[in-house]
Amino acid sequence: MPAEAWQRLGDYLRETQLLGSIQSTLYWDQNTSMPIAGSTWRGEQLSLIARKLHSRRSSKEYGQILSDAKSEFQQNRDLKGIDCLDESAIQRNFDLLDQDFSRQQRLDPTLVGHLAKAKSEGYNQWQYARSKSDFSSFAPSLKKLIALRQEEAKQLNEPRSCWETLAQPFEPDLTYKRLQELFFPLRQRLPILVENVRSMSPKKRERWDLSIDVQQQFSEQLLNDWGSDPSVSCVAQSPHPFSITLGPNDYRLTTRVVPGQPFSCLLATAHEWGHSLYEQGLPREQHQWFGWPLGNATSMGVHESQSLFWENRVARSKAFSNRWYSRFVAAGAPIRSTEELWRLMNPLTPGLNRVEADELSYGLHILIRTDLEIALLEEGLEVEALPYEWNHRYTELLGATPSNAREGCLQDVHWSEGLFGYFPSYLIGHLISAQLTHSMLKDLGKLGIQGDDPLGAVVSLGKESMLLQWLRENVHVFGRKVNAEQLVKKVTGESLSSSFFLTYLEQKIEELEACT
Amino acid sequence: MPAEAWQRLGDYLRETQLLGSIQSTLYWDQNTSMPIAGSTWRGEQLSLIARKLHSRRSSKEYGQILSDAKSEFQQNRDLKGIDCLDESAIQRNFDLLDQDFSRQQRLDPTLVGHLAKAKSEGYNQWQYARSKSDFSSFAPSLKKLIALRQEEAKQLNEPRSCWETLAQPFEPDLTYKRLQELFFPLRQRLPILVENVRSMSPKKRERWDLSIDVQQQFSEQLLNDWGSDPSVSCVAQSPHPFSITLGPNDYRLTTRVVPGQPFSCLLATAHEWGHSLYEQGLPREQHQWFGWPLGNATSMGVHESQSLFWENRVARSKAFSNRWYSRFVAAGAPIRSTEELWRLMNPLTPGLNRVEADELSYGLHILIRTDLEIALLEEGLEVEALPYEWNHRYTELLGATPSNAREGCLQDVHWSEGLFGYFPSYLIGHLISAQLTHSMLKDLGKLGIQGDDPLGAVVSLGKESMLLQWLRENVHVFGRKVNAEQLVKKVTGESLSSSFFLTYLEQKIEELEACT
Repeated sequence: MPAEAWQRLGDYLRETQLLGSIQSTLYWDQNTSMPIAGSTWRGEQLSLIARKLHSRRSSKEYGQILSDAKSEFQQNRDLKGIDCLDESAIQRNFDLLDQDFSRQQRLDPTLVGHLAKAKSEGYNQWQYARSKSDFSSFAPSLKKLIALRQEEAKQLNEPRSCWETLAQPFEPDLTYKRLQELFFPLRQRLPILVENVRSMSPKKRERWDLSIDVQQQFSEQLLNDWGSDPSVSCVAQSPHPFSITLGPNDYRLTTRVVPGQPFSCLLATAHEWGHSLYEQGLPREQHQWFGWPLGNATSMGVHESQSLFWENRVARSKAFSNRWYSRFVAAGAPIRSTEELWRLMNPLTPGLNRVEADELSYGLHILIRTDLEIALLEEGLEVEALPYEWNHRYTELLGATPSNAREGCLQDVHWSEGLFGYFPSYLIGHLISAQLTHSMLKDLGKLGIQGDDPLGAVVSLGKESMLLQWLRENVHVFGRKVNAEQLVKKVTGESLSSSFFLTYLEQKIEELEACT
Repeated sequence: MPAEAWQRLGDYLRETQLLGSIQSTLYWDQNTSMPIAGSTWRGEQLSLIARKLHSRRSSKEYGQILSDAKSEFQQNRDLKGIDCLDESAIQRNFDLLDQDFSRQQRLDPTLVGHLAKAKSEGYNQWQYARSKSDFSSFAPSLKKLIALRQEEAKQLNEPRSCWETLAQPFEPDLTYKRLQELFFPLRQRLPILVENVRSMSPKKRERWDLSIDVQQQFSEQLLNDWGSDPSVSCVAQSPHPFSITLGPNDYRLTTRVVPGQPFSCLLATAHEWGHSLYEQGLPREQHQWFGWPLGNATSMGVHESQSLFWENRVARSKAFSNRWYSRFVAAGAPIRSTEELWRLMNPLTPGLNRVEADELSYGLHILIRTDLEIALLEEGLEVEALPYEWNHRYTELLGATPSNAREGCLQDVHWSEGLFGYFPSYLIGHLISAQLTHSMLKDLGKLGIQGDDPLGAVVSLGKESMLLQWLRENVHVFGRKVNAEQLVKKVTGESLSSSFFLTYLEQKIEELEACT
């Protein structure tokens, strides 16, 4: 029995994925090339693809193909014709496909079209509002997006709250309760740490910068050092750095140069390349990859753990500063020692901006957004009150008050595209990264890397490929076979917890203090 | 009666156009950003869209919508609910839609999918073959493309030869007989002119160049001078410059910098911007634009006439050299006079490469390609014999023999994408440009522009917008309301002929000789 139905299902999923990757290409173009006046038509294109995707993922025809493949599998447990998967992997693929099908079926196609258009319009309106720092011109779009996404959650009708339902695509299986459990120690501890750090003698901000050319050259050098292959990946510029996969051999990332921030482009490159490496390492065997659930990233938190690893654990390490010091000096940076470079690459200066935040205060930015989006979706917080609530919390938690909406609640793109439930993944990513890295360090020791700082030793030798190898084997290869929490348990032997992250932070603060 | 069926037809065509513009976006990305390993998947994406487009343009559902709209129009000649079109425009839209529908219906969907894939594979294979200068590695792809397109012509089953059938999308209504009539005087006269020019004292090639930065800056300045608006158009780099429209307010163009050719990027910009201006000037009233036939370019020859006008008549004019001389000097170009700049921007040096050809020998490159593609499609010329035939004709007509396939029959991309019947449009574009410009010059005189050289006078004043205005009113605005030959007759009062082009060339040679 040649697994015909399984093959038919694979063909069907492949075409769905072709459409999905076309959608991603439109998104990439919108953010890297499209002139602004193209946005209305682009919105219509994206809405068309969204409706077609939804139709493919919810059609009776698809239901039949899926059900045929499941029946065939029941009768054919020896998996003839299905080469490279074990029974549990096949079952997991079916479970995830069933879950998605049942969700898609519950959505009204009209809503899907409206949402796609509202996202595109919201994004444009946000760009405009942000440029004018005028929240009131964005408020109507935000209201519309909230209403549409509340309607979506209602139609999905899951045994979850509205916010939980919308968070599922980013963090499958996450509950509000579990989130609060994970974040509670951070709510307690982070403000104290931030306060302590504030009393550290404040370094005055450096007044030097690197030219755009040098920064882009550094970005290229980093990618080259870390094994990027220009035949499968490329880099462009965009207002917000991102990483996106457009095909099984087509990985894109963007960076940006921020005036007055000579490390921003380099660190953004490290970060986005970390995302890309995860995508590049996802399982690719026949039937698993791309169109199939198992070939995808398991959660945005895990995704973020990968980008944060390369940004914070590698590029911000002492060993990295040692290796790059001469490059910075050659480029004219007025830095007198590798220690100074390391110190500059690891600022501890709580501010108003999430993207520019240091590792320590970053979590507070997320806690604020998480609370606010839950309030907007579930607790009746009025959109009009958002700027006030935002500023109020910043003053309280970070001791700084935005002087306008651009510095405040208009700074992030996410809500303008209707992305609610996404922000927590950033902080979960910090937790996962810290916990996974803890295990990696132990394993590096076993591999014969000596000393207190095995990661530093590896970076000093320019052997970052060893780190990638570990991530490939322990994280990337599983795709969606396990969810985020299962993955952490599998790799580290312990449930996900914030303690590894807090310990890491405290240790780093200590080292930075010693270095000041 | 609110013209419901008409409205339904408009909605249908709009969705078709959304898909078509998605296809164009994928093409743009492929040529400006995509890493090479992404090409296989991109081929599958393009094939999927091609199949969907074909299905939309040939479906029974569409046939019904089209037929309903026609019936409604028959009963509703007073055009209630159709604001801005006259009866003949509506009729023309229907005629062109009928023609396309009937063509699409005759095509087998499997063929459409195979063709899209073969084009994408052919393009990749050509890139590879060209890089190795190895025709034999491209020959199988070319054979396949020829066979598939012969099959396409057979399925279309028009009262035209295979080549004529394939040329229709580029030059609607063109016949082989008419083409030979138009080209005959060129076959006679161009080789003589080329021979005469060869005896002109050969200028030694300049050894200077401009940096990539300067050339790109010049390109930006030109676009700025000529009224480009960055909110509706943008520029990227690609191996072959092109212009493409991705939405009603989204115009893209590409340029390239060729080492050793300091004018190449500037002239390519002028050329591609000319294409883009035509697209930007096409009729936009409700129902006419984009998705409707009348909102489209009437032929590739007319398209090319617009790009050639801006490249050859404006950017290569004496007045332009006068205006730009100081910019070139400031950029370090070792030019001693505006005459020298003008002379350098108008080389007369027959060579092996079409894209780099001068205005005079350009036509010979096209005559060779036209003859060869007709021979390949209709006269049994073997693909294996192509390099020999190519080189043979170059030796005969241009007095130079390619030393390898990259210099020879692998130089152009067109055949690798299955584009047969396209090349003649380039030369027809020269003829149309010369004839239209002849009328424009007379009209500029009437508008009070004094002197023997009204075009030069306008450029001297930096009033290129007057030229654009004339083109908008006399050429762009008609879209497909008239075909190429009808347009020329309408504007110039005479049938299209090669005499204007030949007269223009002879005059220019005389001026250049006087300047040497």
